[in-house]
Parts: sequence; C-alpha cells; structure tokens
Amino acid sequence: MTNDSFDPGPVPACWSREHLLGLEGLSADEITAILDKAVLFKKELLAGRRRFPLLSGVTCVNLFFENSTRTRVSFGLAARRLGADAIDFSAATSSLSKGETVIDTAKNIEAMCVDIVIVRHRTPGAPHLLAQNLNASIINAGDGPHEHPTQGLLDIMTMRERFGSLEGRTVAMVGDIQHSRTARSNIWGLKALGAHVIVCGPSTLVSPRWEELGVEYSYSLDDIIPRVDVLNLLRIQFERQVTRPFPSIREYAALYAMNAPRLARAKDSILIMAPGPINRGVEITPDVADGPQSAIIEQVTNGVAVRMAVLWLINESRLAAKAAV
Amino acid sequence: MTNDSFDPGPVPACWSREHLLGLEGLSADEITAILDKAVLFKKELLAGRRRFPLLSGVTCVNLFFENSTRTRVSFGLAARRLGADAIDFSAATSSLSKGETVIDTAKNIEAMCVDIVIVRHRTPGAPHLLAQNLNASIINAGDGPHEHPTQGLLDIMTMRERFGSLEGRTVAMVGDIQHSRTARSNIWGLKALGAHVIVCGPSTLVSPRWEELGVEYSYSLDDIIPRVDVLNLLRIQFERQVTRPFPSIREYAALYAMNAPRLARAKDSILIMAPGPINRGVEITPDVADGPQSAIIEQVTNGVAVRMAVLWLINESRLAAKAAV
Amino acid sequence: MTNDSFDPGPVPACWSREHLLGLEGLSADEITAILDKAVLFKKELLAGRRRFPLLSGVTCVNLFFENSTRTRVSFGLAARRLGADAIDFSAATSSLSKGETVIDTAKNIEAMCVDIVIVRHRTPGAPHLLAQNLNASIINAGDGPHEHPTQGLLDIMTMRERFGSLEGRTVAMVGDIQHSRTARSNIWGLKALGAHVIVCGPSTLVSPRWEELGVEYSYSLDDIIPRVDVLNLLRIQFERQVTRPFPSIREYAALYAMNAPRLARAKDSILIMAPGPINRGVEITPDVADGPQSAIIEQVTNGVAVRMAVLWLINESRLAAKAAV
Repeated sequence: MTNDSFDPGPVPACWSREHLLGLEGLSADEITAILDKAVLFKKELLAGRRRFPLLSGVTCVNLFFENSTRTRVSFGLAARRLGADAIDFSAATSSLSKGETVIDTAKNIEAMCVDIVIVRHRTPGAPHLLAQNLNASIINAGDGPHEHPTQGLLDIMTMRERFGSLEGRTVAMVGDIQHSRTARSNIWGLKALGAHVIVCGPSTLVSPRWEELGVEYSYSLDDIIPRVDVLNLLRIQFERQVTRPFPSIREYAALYAMNAPRLARAKDSILIMAPGPINRGVEITPDVADGPQSAIIEQVTNGVAVRMAVLWLINESRLAAKAAV
Repeated sequence: MTNDSFDPGPVPACWSREHLLGLEGLSADEITAILDKAVLFKKELLAGRRRFPLLSGVTCVNLFFENSTRTRVSFGLAARRLGADAIDFSAATSSLSKGETVIDTAKNIEAMCVDIVIVRHRTPGAPHLLAQNLNASIINAGDGPHEHPTQGLLDIMTMRERFGSLEGRTVAMVGDIQHSRTARSNIWGLKALGAHVIVCGPSTLVSPRWEELGVEYSYSLDDIIPRVDVLNLLRIQFERQVTRPFPSIREYAALYAMNAPRLARAKDSILIMAPGPINRGVEITPDVADGPQSAIIEQVTNGVAVRMAVLWLINESRLAAKAAV
Repeated sequence: MTNDSFDPGPVPACWSREHLLGLEGLSADEITAILDKAVLFKKELLAGRRRFPLLSGVTCVNLFFENSTRTRVSFGLAARRLGADAIDFSAATSSLSKGETVIDTAKNIEAMCVDIVIVRHRTPGAPHLLAQNLNASIINAGDGPHEHPTQGLLDIMTMRERFGSLEGRTVAMVGDIQHSRTARSNIWGLKALGAHVIVCGPSTLVSPRWEELGVEYSYSLDDIIPRVDVLNLLRIQFERQVTRPFPSIREYAALYAMNAPRLARAKDSILIMAPGPINRGVEITPDVADGPQSAIIEQVTNGVAVRMAVLWLINESRLAAKAAV
C-alpha cells in the first residue's frame, strides 16, 4: 500500500488561498476544509501509509529564523510524505548574522526555484511581508507572539475529534497568554467555529484587554475549571523569560498547574491539551499528563496531518493560479 | 542496476527481534544472521548499487542526544539506501534544554508516525527504557559507556572477513576500556562467537574486574602483542577527559601506540583496527594506520552494510509482529 | 512533466574531467560545455520541473569545513533534483575538532560508498589533495582565497545571458579582491572566454601584483565606471576582518559603493552583479540592487543550474572511466 497513489478528493469550493499567514480572517468553511483533509491523511498515517505522492516535483523550504526542532521536523515530514523535496535553511548557520534583510534572504532562497516557503521569525508580520514580496507560497510557522496557524489548527483538530462540533463549547487557555502566538491562533480559529474562549493566567500575563478579541479572561483556574470543556495548557517558556512574570515556579504551579484535585472538580468529559514540550510538575502534573483526559500525544500526530492538509491545499491553489495565467 | 529491486533472501529462523539494544544476550546465530546479510549488502554497495527499496514507506529517526556526525550519517545513509525516510532529531537544537524527559521527547517524535528510532544517549539503559515505553523499534547507537552494538557488529564483521571463523582467535582491545561502549559490545559479540578477548591499557583504564566479563586483562601491550590475531585500538577521547588517566600523551604513546617496532613482534597475519577518528601518532602511527594490516577504512564501509542489515532485519520482525496481530 | 525523464543531450567531446577543482586551466570549450548544459537545466527549472533523474543511485556529500548555508543548500538542491542522494557533513559537528586530518576525514566519508565529494575548506589546495587521495569525484566549493569555480561559472553564465559572447567585454570586480576566491575563479574563466578584467579596490585589497594574472588594476571605481560592461561587487566580509583594510564603512562606501550617481556615469547596458548576501548601503545602494541593471537574484538561480550541469558532466565522466576499466 505504501507507494500507491492517494486521492484526497476534490478541493472544497471555499478554498483558494495560496498562503497560510494566520487563522485571523479564515472562515469556518476554510478551517473545516483543512481539518477534513487532515482527517483523511491521519487515517492513512495511522494505518501505516507514509507516502502520498501529491506534491512530487515541489520544493518546500523550512526558513526558520528561530530554532524549533519539532515544528521544523513536523513540516519536513509532512512535505516529504507528500513527495515534495524538503530542505532546511535555519538562522543559526544562515547569513542573517551577515546583515542581510529578511526579504533579501527569502528572495535568494526563492531564486533557487523554491515553491513553498515555511517561515518562522520573531517579528510579527514577517510572513505577510514575504507573501507580498515573493512569488512562492508562504506558510507562517510562527511570527513572534502574533500567530502560529498550524498549531491552532492541530489544537482545534484535536478538540473536534473529541467533541464533533465546537459550537458552544468552552475552551480555556492557561498560562503565558501575553507572549503566545498559539493562543492568538487558537482564539481566531475557535471563534470562527463558534466556541467560547477563556484566557487564564496571572495578571502579568493576562489582562482585560483580551476582551477586545471577544474572549473572556480570568485570573483563577479554580474559578473556571468546573465549566470548561477543553483546557489548553500553554508552556511556561522559562528559557525566554527575562523578567519573571510570577514570583516562583512553585507559586505558578500552585495556582495554575492542572493536577488531580482540579481534575476532580472538572467535567468528566474534559479534554486536556498542551503544546509540548511540557514541564512536568509545572503546568501539568505527570498523572494528568498521562491520564485518559490528556490528548498531548494525539496533538503531535494531528500536527503532521494538519500540515499535510495545508501543504496540499495551498499547492492545489498555487497550481490552479498558475494554470489560470 | 541501481534502481532494481533487491532480494536479500529469507529472514533466518533464529531472528525475531524488533529492537537492537546491545550485543549482550545475542546468540551466535543471531550475530551470524546480521553479518551474513551485511555481506550481501556490502557486495552490492561495492558494485555501485545505492538503492535497495526494502524499507519504502518506513520512517527512521536519528534521535541523538549526543553529537556524533559519523554514526548519524552512517545510519542515515543505511536507512535512505533502503528506501526509508530518514530524519535527524539532535540534542543541540532539541527541546532537551527545555527540561523535557527522554521518554516524553521520544514519545512525541514517535507520535509523528515514526517506525524506527535510532537513539544515542549518555545514560546507560536509555534505549531499553524507550523500548519499554514506545511502540517503535529501537536501535541503540550508543548509551553512555554501556553498549554500541552496531559498532561491535561492524568490528566483528571486519574480523570475520579476514579470518572466517573467530573461534579460538585472540582479540585485544587497547586503550580507554573503562569508558568504552565499543569495548563492551565487542566483548559480548566476540565471546558469543568463541573468540578470546584481552583488554589492555593503563591501570587507570583497565582493571582485574574485567575478568568478571570473561576476558583477560593486561597492562602491557608489549607482553600480549606476539599472540594476538586482532588489535582494536580504541580512541583516546581527549575532548572528554576531565582528569587525565595517564601522565602525558607521549607516555601513553610510548606504552600503547601501535607502531613499526611492535608490528615487527606481531604475527604476520595480525589485523589492526580502530574505530575512528584516529589520533595519528597517539594510539597508532601513520605507517601502521596506512599499512596492509590496517582495516580502518573497511570498518567504515562495513558500518553502513551492518546498519542496513540491522534495519532490514528489525523491520521484517516489526512487519511480522504487526501481521500477527 | 515533473517526473519525466530528461535528456540533456550528449556530453561534448571536449569534456572528460572527473573533478572540478578550479577554473584555472579550463579551456573556453570546457567552460562553454558547462554553461550550455546549465542553460538547459535552467530553462526546465523556470518552467516548473524539479526532477531530472540523471544521477539516480549516486551519493553526493557536502563536506564543508567552513559554514556556508547558501552554497551548501544550492549544491544539495542541485544533487537532489538530479535524483542523487545528498548528505551533509559539516565541520561544526564533525570530528575535525578531534584532531583528524582532512584526508582521513574524507577517506572515512568516501568509505561509506560516496561517489562525489563537494568540499569547502579554508586551505588552498585542499580539494586537489583530496582528488589525489580519493577515488570519488571532487568538486571544489571554495578553498580559502584560492578558487570557488561554481561561483565563477554562475557569474559568467549571468554575464553570457546578457551579452552573448564575452569576447572583448570589460568586467570589473570591486572590493576585497585580496581574500576573494570568487575573484580568482572569475579571472581564470573570463580570460579564457576573451574578456578584459579589472580588479578595483583600496590599495590594501588590490595591488599591482594582480597584473601578473593578466588583469588590470585600479584604485578608483570612478575612473573605470564609464568603460565597464559588468560590475561584480564583492562582499565586504566584515565578520572575517581582523584588521580593517579601510578606515571606516562610510569611507569604503563613499569610494566603492555602486549608487545612483555612479550608475548615471555608466553605460546604459551595464550589468550589476553581487555574490550575496549583500550589505545594502555598503557595496551597493538599495535602488541599484533592486534596479533593472541588477542580476543579483538571477545569479542564485544560475547557481543551481550551473551546479546541476557540473554534477551531471562529472558523473558522466566518472561512469565513462568506470566502464573503460
């Protein structure tokens, strides 16, 4: 089976995007289109298929100005399993340190006849800048604290697998909301699908301003725990903190860690998620991380499936646009 | 020829392992099964074949928590030549520094639908821990000073090519025995095949305790040189030494370097090996390293062939186990 | 179209090289042979083709003892698009730091059944040393300040695209001539094709000694600008300078930057090139870099095409030599 051709069905009529820059502005239909295709890819992956020759003769580059082994490998695997050539171009060894602009770097890479550029950069809007200046398709793999759309999609895919529709479901994100592109992408996607979103964390990381995005905010996990359907525990990025936004790890864990006592007060059907790597004992205790409510490992599998769906859909639009010229 | 299908023959009845964690416990039949298949692969490689589509649709990951370009590239080439997708996930850029456990990291990688995990870790037993906790097949690529089974196998393959049977042959390993996983893997494999093993080095690196593993020990290369069939010169890992186990490099070389005067006292048929990179002038002089007794370069070729054989055999067991469910 | 076989036509009778060590000594016919094939590959690349299965079953290694993401990626893409297996073996993680010689490292890599070694090393002549000691084909990807033949070829390809013949054309290279392998490779190639070459820069980087190579030298860009057909602006490698060869960046830019006033004094047909990454505002102003005379981006595309041509031609010679044995 492994080398057979694979038919993911037609591209839905709602889909015509050649870039994926964020979930802001995506319609419920567009999000659903991606997730429906991701379900097809996932089913085949779990059945052991590793080759889906849909992007043969396409060159994808991971242009990462920030390190991220997991996201990079996940995109690389997705691209290669679709039959694309996937190459890495990362900041650590790139010419960034040589004073070149982001657009110059990207244009130079595109000039090697690259079709799809997957970009991570610390500056919000960098992928949008590239989409305006390059002919290649751009996928945002994280632009500073702004968006990380495939992480949002894989999170939402995981919720949708558990609950079917997300209409009217309550999803709480807990932790460093302030600096989280994952939070922003989740918010846009979840709202488009009709979910109610709560952001929760210490007042140094969560503020009333979040209401402007149409979400509820809370400083107390204990207050909201009884009514949430999904808990998405954002990672405390100790390695990035310059000024500590809370007095101590112990104090953070006391107030915001998901643990057995809090689980006892939650709905039986609660879904617990975390975009790894997790700090066991900080944002989540080991018993909960490994418990039946946890979908942490499924999120990773869904990540590959979602990225395959995004790459395929974007490439189809790219080919359609080319054919139309 | 290069893209033809390739038939490595049936899997021997003795072989049913889905992991290769060490050579300890492997029977002579199992070791022979691997080496016999490696001989087939090597023959084809030397004839110019680079593609053996036996692992198409299999994803292998090099999960290296310690740097090792050579072993990583050798495994990667072996996997790719078998038609597998091979990806690298290395510690330097991984989330290890983010406080994640080894099992969490490995489970996350496995969740990307990975079939075979090749792991190097500084902790003895780490591969065994992963074999217990993952569904993927695990190959030990070095666990601290414990084992490095494919290095042991490639060394033994090189000896077997020269001598046919190893029954009754005397193999001496010289140098930093204390910290050497290569030494331990060689010992288990060589003993299974009936060879006599001597470990030789300064008393800071070799001790009577080695007799417990059923091997002879010696502090003097000059004493043992006339009666050895094979000399395996372990690398002095200057970059790892905190406290020097010997007064000076010059003193080490005076006592343990393989050089022309010592070669003159050895058997004509002596086989000289070294798991590179070698320090010319330290454990071996250039004339001996490049002389007709040296098999240093053949060891590298055998490394690729042995790894192809191991990957193929393990994958066959994995498929058989799956089919049986 | 993407997976079709591709016919680059016959190997020209003048071509029999199994290595590409430099442009010094290459005949006009040999250079033309490479460029003509590169034109074929480029045409197909621009039409969207990414697969040219001409080097199936060939293993290429990028053996880079100095970092260079761009050149490495360009060679890697060229090799993979030709259907070869391409692997990276870079100094940062290699055993160089372990005291091994260059020849030992290269021989070890070759022993993994590698067919073509693409080498970058800070020592002039290192590729020649490898060509003498290995059986694999060697391509020089930069040896200290000596040669960087594929950079020279891609530069010349870009000029030839604009002017057809280079006979009698005047090509000026500006900047750090002293340390530039690109300058040396351009000089040999351009002279073979009948162009007149000027090297231009401050007296710390350019000297009368360059006349020995049959080129003109000048300390003043303003003096030569009216009569040049091509201006190749070498990068000032700030990250490599220990002692500054000029008082300040501002002073360098004032004398040697290509800008609008200088462009106004140049021929209308002037071709402006730069082997990136460029320092905008130092060796070139943004308006000129992005203007119609600039071929900076085309150079990158030509780089992939030239490397495909070189890899294919060298592999054909390799196969012919093997068949002849």
